[in-house]
Amino acid sequence: MTLDETLGFDLVELAEETAHARVAVDERHLQPLGLVHGGVYAAIAESLASHATAHSVASRGLVALGMSNNTSFFRTIAKGTVLADAVRIHRGRTTWVWDVRLTDEDGRLCAASRVTVAVRPPGRSV
Amino acid sequence: MTLDETLGFDLVELAEETAHARVAVDERHLQPLGLVHGGVYAAIAESLASHATAHSVASRGLVALGMSNNTSFFRTIAKGTVLADAVRIHRGRTTWVWDVRLTDEDGRLCAASRVTVAVRPPGRSV
Amino acid sequence: MTLDETLGFDLVELAEETAHARVAVDERHLQPLGLVHGGVYAAIAESLASHATAHSVASRGLVALGMSNNTSFFRTIAKGTVLADAVRIHRGRTTWVWDVRLTDEDGRLCAASRVTVAVRPPGRSV
Amino acid sequence: MTLDETLGFDLVELAEETAHARVAVDERHLQPLGLVHGGVYAAIAESLASHATAHSVASRGLVALGMSNNTSFFRTIAKGTVLADAVRIHRGRTTWVWDVRLTDEDGRLCAASRVTVAVRPPGRSV
Repeated sequence: MTLDETLGFDLVELAEETAHARVAVDERHLQPLGLVHGGVYAAIAESLASHATAHSVASRGLVALGMSNNTSFFRTIAKGTVLADAVRIHRGRTTWVWDVRLTDEDGRLCAASRVTVAVRPPGRSV
Repeated sequence: MTLDETLGFDLVELAEETAHARVAVDERHLQPLGLVHGGVYAAIAESLASHATAHSVASRGLVALGMSNNTSFFRTIAKGTVLADAVRIHRGRTTWVWDVRLTDEDGRLCAASRVTVAVRPPGRSV
Repeated sequence: MTLDETLGFDLVELAEETAHARVAVDERHLQPLGLVHGGVYAAIAESLASHATAHSVASRGLVALGMSNNTSFFRTIAKGTVLADAVRIHRGRTTWVWDVRLTDEDGRLCAASRVTVAVRPPGRSV
Repeated sequence: MTLDETLGFDLVELAEETAHARVAVDERHLQPLGLVHGGVYAAIAESLASHATAHSVASRGLVALGMSNNTSFFRTIAKGTVLADAVRIHRGRTTWVWDVRLTDEDGRLCAASRVTVAVRPPGRSV
């Protein structure tokens, strides 16, 4: 099992420059006021950016490790589906950077993440 | 159920200026390489800062809502316990800001979060 | 005099949802290796987001105050012109949030900022 | 000339684990409301973290390049001296991370920065 499975993240598409995920909100994702927990948005964004980077660099024998995750929260939701759309804004030699928009089913922006992923040979620390 | 319960977060202390949590790592918290997922660190920090703020402002009839969560990752771990120690660095009229250190059992820094929490009358949006 | 004048920032357009600036690089902007200093990118982005917000809320008697500035650096340049393009991604009751792309003359991304601006009645602290 | 000179940054101490700077506020540092511009805080923090890292790794033939600068603003000031105190919170193989507190002469926290600095062989891009 992984966090993605624990939280029901559905990684719909993982490509070199874009990636998409969705999560059907249920009680697993809520904080005590009944709203989606901020950590859920951060975690989806992290999964999306890390997995998309990992898939893209695996053919060169490299691995992807998260370096930083900056998430801002704009709108609270209590149910429905969170859609995550990631766009790669930087492809460097040692880091890839992604902007991730988290929206509700009506396309309203709930949160936005900027995720920096280190690209490394296996076994190398950050 | 809440995210805290889903992920087994143990919020040990929630005070006005400091807060502490711990989480015993198991497979729920891992990414595909078998390491603790970055979203777990972000989520613990978010819970700690939000709950500590909420508890402190509740007596004035106010609620706490996360505004931003900036988490940097330094060291990967695969098992053991993650300790989260939060210190409030700013108490403003409308926002509280917390620095959260995430360490392993030997006190080594695995991640660090800066969490900004909005303080609002109930029902007010950010 | 202001920082904008000290550093020769040319604020080309300040609108409700977008804003543009440019700065012709000279020795005032450099760090010791002869590259544009990271603080210059952060400062342009801050000016752009703050001024654009201030102009837009002034008619309602409100002022704009920077709350946070998260800037990532991708490409170093030593001369030429830095172009700053800001897009508002959130218009809340108390905060506006802008994404700012900093590019060189050939459109290559040198840095990216996310700037959160508080909107307040005059004299109110953050 | 450099940005540090343009803005009168006085780098008082640059050591391996701590660094200190001060800047006497004058009109060069202000935004249109007469307050210290957020970009000034970001720029001092960037200088402090980058220079302290650069000095420390130079003996190994390495250079320091800013990767990200996350600055939050808490208190506005219009005059006096800004004191910047940096503490290194992470020393990795390829990145050093610093927390920088920006205070006024009475020790009140005006801003706080987290600065990530890449450590690289000369000529290597990020």
